[in-house]
Amino acid sequence: MKLRNRVEPTPSDIDIAQAADLRPISLIAEDLGLQETEFDAHGRYKAKIHLSVAERLKSQPGGHYVVVGGITPTPLGEGKSTTTVGLCQALGAYMNKPVLTVIRQPSQGPTFGIKGGAAGGGYSQVVPMEELNLHLTGDIHAVTASNNLLAAAIDARMFHEASQSDAALLKRLCPVDKDGQRTVAPVQQRRLDRLGISTPLDDLSPEDLKRFVRLDMDPDNITWRRVMDVNDRFLRGIVTGAAPTERGMKRDTAFDITVASEVMAVLALASSLGDLRERLGRMAVATSRSGDLVTADDLGVGGALTVLMKDALQPTLMQTLEHTPVLVHAGPFANIAHGNSSIIADQIGLKLVGPEGFVITEAGFGSDIGLEKFMNIKCRTSGLKPSCAVIVATVRALKMHGGGPAVVAGQALAPAYKGEDLELLRKGTCNLAKHVQNTCKFGVPVVVAINAFASDTDAELELVAQAAKEAGALQGVVCRHHAQGGEGAVQLAEAVQQACQSHSDFRFLYPLDLPLKEKIETIAREIYGASGIELQPRAEAQLEAFTRLGFGNLPICMAKTQYSFSADPAAKGAPSGFTLPIRDAQLSAGAGFVYPLVGEMMMMPGLPTRPCFYDIDVDTETGKVIGLS
Amino acid sequence: MKLRNRVEPTPSDIDIAQAADLRPISLIAEDLGLQETEFDAHGRYKAKIHLSVAERLKSQPGGHYVVVGGITPTPLGEGKSTTTVGLCQALGAYMNKPVLTVIRQPSQGPTFGIKGGAAGGGYSQVVPMEELNLHLTGDIHAVTASNNLLAAAIDARMFHEASQSDAALLKRLCPVDKDGQRTVAPVQQRRLDRLGISTPLDDLSPEDLKRFVRLDMDPDNITWRRVMDVNDRFLRGIVTGAAPTERGMKRDTAFDITVASEVMAVLALASSLGDLRERLGRMAVATSRSGDLVTADDLGVGGALTVLMKDALQPTLMQTLEHTPVLVHAGPFANIAHGNSSIIADQIGLKLVGPEGFVITEAGFGSDIGLEKFMNIKCRTSGLKPSCAVIVATVRALKMHGGGPAVVAGQALAPAYKGEDLELLRKGTCNLAKHVQNTCKFGVPVVVAINAFASDTDAELELVAQAAKEAGALQGVVCRHHAQGGEGAVQLAEAVQQACQSHSDFRFLYPLDLPLKEKIETIAREIYGASGIELQPRAEAQLEAFTRLGFGNLPICMAKTQYSFSADPAAKGAPSGFTLPIRDAQLSAGAGFVYPLVGEMMMMPGLPTRPCFYDIDVDTETGKVIGLS
Repeated sequence: MKLRNRVEPTPSDIDIAQAADLRPISLIAEDLGLQETEFDAHGRYKAKIHLSVAERLKSQPGGHYVVVGGITPTPLGEGKSTTTVGLCQALGAYMNKPVLTVIRQPSQGPTFGIKGGAAGGGYSQVVPMEELNLHLTGDIHAVTASNNLLAAAIDARMFHEASQSDAALLKRLCPVDKDGQRTVAPVQQRRLDRLGISTPLDDLSPEDLKRFVRLDMDPDNITWRRVMDVNDRFLRGIVTGAAPTERGMKRDTAFDITVASEVMAVLALASSLGDLRERLGRMAVATSRSGDLVTADDLGVGGALTVLMKDALQPTLMQTLEHTPVLVHAGPFANIAHGNSSIIADQIGLKLVGPEGFVITEAGFGSDIGLEKFMNIKCRTSGLKPSCAVIVATVRALKMHGGGPAVVAGQALAPAYKGEDLELLRKGTCNLAKHVQNTCKFGVPVVVAINAFASDTDAELELVAQAAKEAGALQGVVCRHHAQGGEGAVQLAEAVQQACQSHSDFRFLYPLDLPLKEKIETIAREIYGASGIELQPRAEAQLEAFTRLGFGNLPICMAKTQYSFSADPAAKGAPSGFTLPIRDAQLSAGAGFVYPLVGEMMMMPGLPTRPCFYDIDVDTETGKVIGLS
Repeated sequence: MKLRNRVEPTPSDIDIAQAADLRPISLIAEDLGLQETEFDAHGRYKAKIHLSVAERLKSQPGGHYVVVGGITPTPLGEGKSTTTVGLCQALGAYMNKPVLTVIRQPSQGPTFGIKGGAAGGGYSQVVPMEELNLHLTGDIHAVTASNNLLAAAIDARMFHEASQSDAALLKRLCPVDKDGQRTVAPVQQRRLDRLGISTPLDDLSPEDLKRFVRLDMDPDNITWRRVMDVNDRFLRGIVTGAAPTERGMKRDTAFDITVASEVMAVLALASSLGDLRERLGRMAVATSRSGDLVTADDLGVGGALTVLMKDALQPTLMQTLEHTPVLVHAGPFANIAHGNSSIIADQIGLKLVGPEGFVITEAGFGSDIGLEKFMNIKCRTSGLKPSCAVIVATVRALKMHGGGPAVVAGQALAPAYKGEDLELLRKGTCNLAKHVQNTCKFGVPVVVAINAFASDTDAELELVAQAAKEAGALQGVVCRHHAQGGEGAVQLAEAVQQACQSHSDFRFLYPLDLPLKEKIETIAREIYGASGIELQPRAEAQLEAFTRLGFGNLPICMAKTQYSFSADPAAKGAPSGFTLPIRDAQLSAGAGFVYPLVGEMMMMPGLPTRPCFYDIDVDTETGKVIGLS
């Protein structure tokens, strides 16, 4: 349905969203060809999609697969979600193409902190925006619950091992049942198999008994941290076990924001319930004193984590303001995690739209962040090949890259951003060019979407379109979907449609059998423009350890600032010749990647002096949410 | 619908639950007289009830209001939820009475820890039991999220106040808008009104500016703690702010389990969305250096907390195995909180069943715990009057009170509990008698439900029934709903029906205008059998402070072990003449009670060496949950 009753100037996001004429989600599902048994409504405007639909449609050819990335953003964001939504509204409501948007679930931390929500904006939004930005169908809460159950299991196990003999541990871990038999849970059998122990438990040698019942985790090598979906900076560093009941077993650790949890990455990368179970079970949480990895299954908790996550594995169906369907699924941040929505949602979406249709999926931040990980991690894991990539650019951000003053959230924009300045803009196009060139390296046709603001002049917009083509994009298209909804993105949609018909030769940036260090170097040189990397000793040691433990073949998920191609957020434009510092590296054995930390990365945001929440309330008469942005 | 195909011996809870023939929740809602716009399905077997139904039915007379309490339990539990459910199945499926069960949402902590779930058991269960025991419709997650947003706001505010001048704080808290006006959010206006400040902000005296912009919270007097719905003992005592970015602002604090959060108590005691907003806003989180209470609204976050909680304010509709309706709503633990499901669910339920119907609501643990708080806090807040109380007793627990060996979860029962022992049992009936007498003090007719186990003999059951009557109960009724479903509780249902017709003269145990200390003493003497209380200095000082601050009129919510009438869990039977130690007292200004801590109360459970989660997994072929109990 095309938008009716558009108003100028554009009202606030929440006013537009609350005034929208929504279609019952059961009808959205029906439009998509879902059968009644293939989805569960969660209220009137959300539904969970059953994974059985993928099985039913397995022989159906899939649609065009379009990924939306961006240039290096300002802290205000360049409207990437808005463009993703506007493009879909254009394809669906104006060009009558089967189309499905796939986006990440927003974290509640930023919603109440500085940034506000992530439902798109203006007349290109996913609705109801309050539900998208808040609990939705509880998937992020499920990630928090399972991450933290695993964390509790680690400390509790260390506590119990510290006070019990091997025999006492066996007695409790595998109690004798009514018939005098030792009970061995299936998850314990997994551990016995992994240890190569087949002797009856009561006949174990003292060494094997110890190997089985003691995980012997090294308190200084616990890599698993607790998480919370709140911007709580005082949890960045904590000491646990400080109560007398824990008998002095204090430990330095931290909370990360939930979207940084490996459980979130696993949710986004799992291809089935069975795959979810295996990935969760093999997540490594610690190293034992003898150097072995300790996994969730070693702790006996892989099954319970799967139980906590099984409903979250179903994507949530919503709609845009113009009634095109949206799947919301998983929400890893792109700077500290892999920054892409789920494989399952994309897979189901491609089947549902069919060969003439389009799945538009968003990758967080720039081509150096979410898009690189989309190609090298997500597509490698799923086997899906993108038909086309869209890079979203704004005049504002390019002026910043050309040397414009700093753009700071919550502060007024400098005059340079309010009037025409072709020189500043021209200088800044180097950033766009690098993102386009990066994307071309994956062999995928590129379209640049120029998200126009009211203050942009025609000459400025034309300059950006020209720069896009010069850099290798098929087209640079001005779009005005924020003010106009899908109608403002029809030209973009046409360009995307053409790009999907053009030649594509998708390839990865690196082969998996390259050593870990060389894979990191490849990303740094090819995508960031670095001259090389500098592995700090801790990172070097970690990469060696992962290789020794058999994880050398994993892809790389860089944790790097989104505000620059380099590790320095202040280095705008397209810096080159710098050395990229790698401070540390972590293993995500369940998600299936190695995770280098570039410089100091903040895993838990904080709240400003006046957080967004000051404006948020409920109208207690109508029940409507006020002040969410 | 009466149960078909019952099997003997009784299969496991999850096997019964998964074999059940469930009715679509929309039909359960229809049976209850709910209109299509008055509920939102959440999947096939759960629905959220809109509060508008209370408005529509406001002139409808309510039904009989029955509360189910218990005797002092063993750690295995005495089947109180099971009895609540069985009683409803009998009333609904066998006696064709309009009936509605109201229970609390189980905490996930114990589900994965030691205790297992809380959906009832055997052929008296709420289904789907997996959904009840896990995320359900996300209400507990919403409590966690809002509790912890408030916690983050506290530490962040202290951090920002520490580094900024009064003028800088004003500049950020009330920024100047485009028209040069200072923005004052409605929640900030609340604070200005409370402080009696009406001067324009830029003309404030330095003193008033400081009073407005600085909450000046005393780090040693922050009472708000973070929460998590996981049994994580290593969070019982933590140090926050240990990362360098927090500039040395370390603080000793702790996590409680979510069900101990004041937000949970507020959810259970709120009567409307407006009431929820006010209660959340006035929750006190700290004392300032000058001795003022600092509230959630002072931090600007009361509205955001309400937004996070507004969907949780809607009770969740489910069903029993015999298709009678169930409302699940709120879940405060009874020992460390007030232990009752929500007022809203009971109110809606009474209207829905109508004057001939029954609402059966459960109060946690014994008459000294959930039932006392049901009467003195919940009914006082709601204005509802109970028609009858049911006290659930078991032969097993009474034998323990008679001096039987300790009953320990996860260990085999001693022989005393497996064969007839009338002497032990007779001695233990003192515990039942005290619970019956306690309940009678509220002027409410009492029925004792004797939850029979296969090993109980007729003589034992008869002895308990006799003891019940001698103590003042109208009847002592043997019931077998675990093995037989509603059919096994028909006699109990008949007794409850009769009790509801008999004379009731509901009264509170204490008037609100009694001093706080005397209210505590009254509960200790009248309900616990203590000879008096011993206020430790910290408790004494707190009670004085609360009285001075204007909270002397609040009711009392004791935090006391559920395993004894006294503060000593080992003191079984009906101890008397002891002095009750009051270690500390807290204020729940939003929930509306003062909260004395009797002895050492554990606010965060731990995990045993072999937690329940070892047995829990998903069958990845069928998607079914395995091993939940």
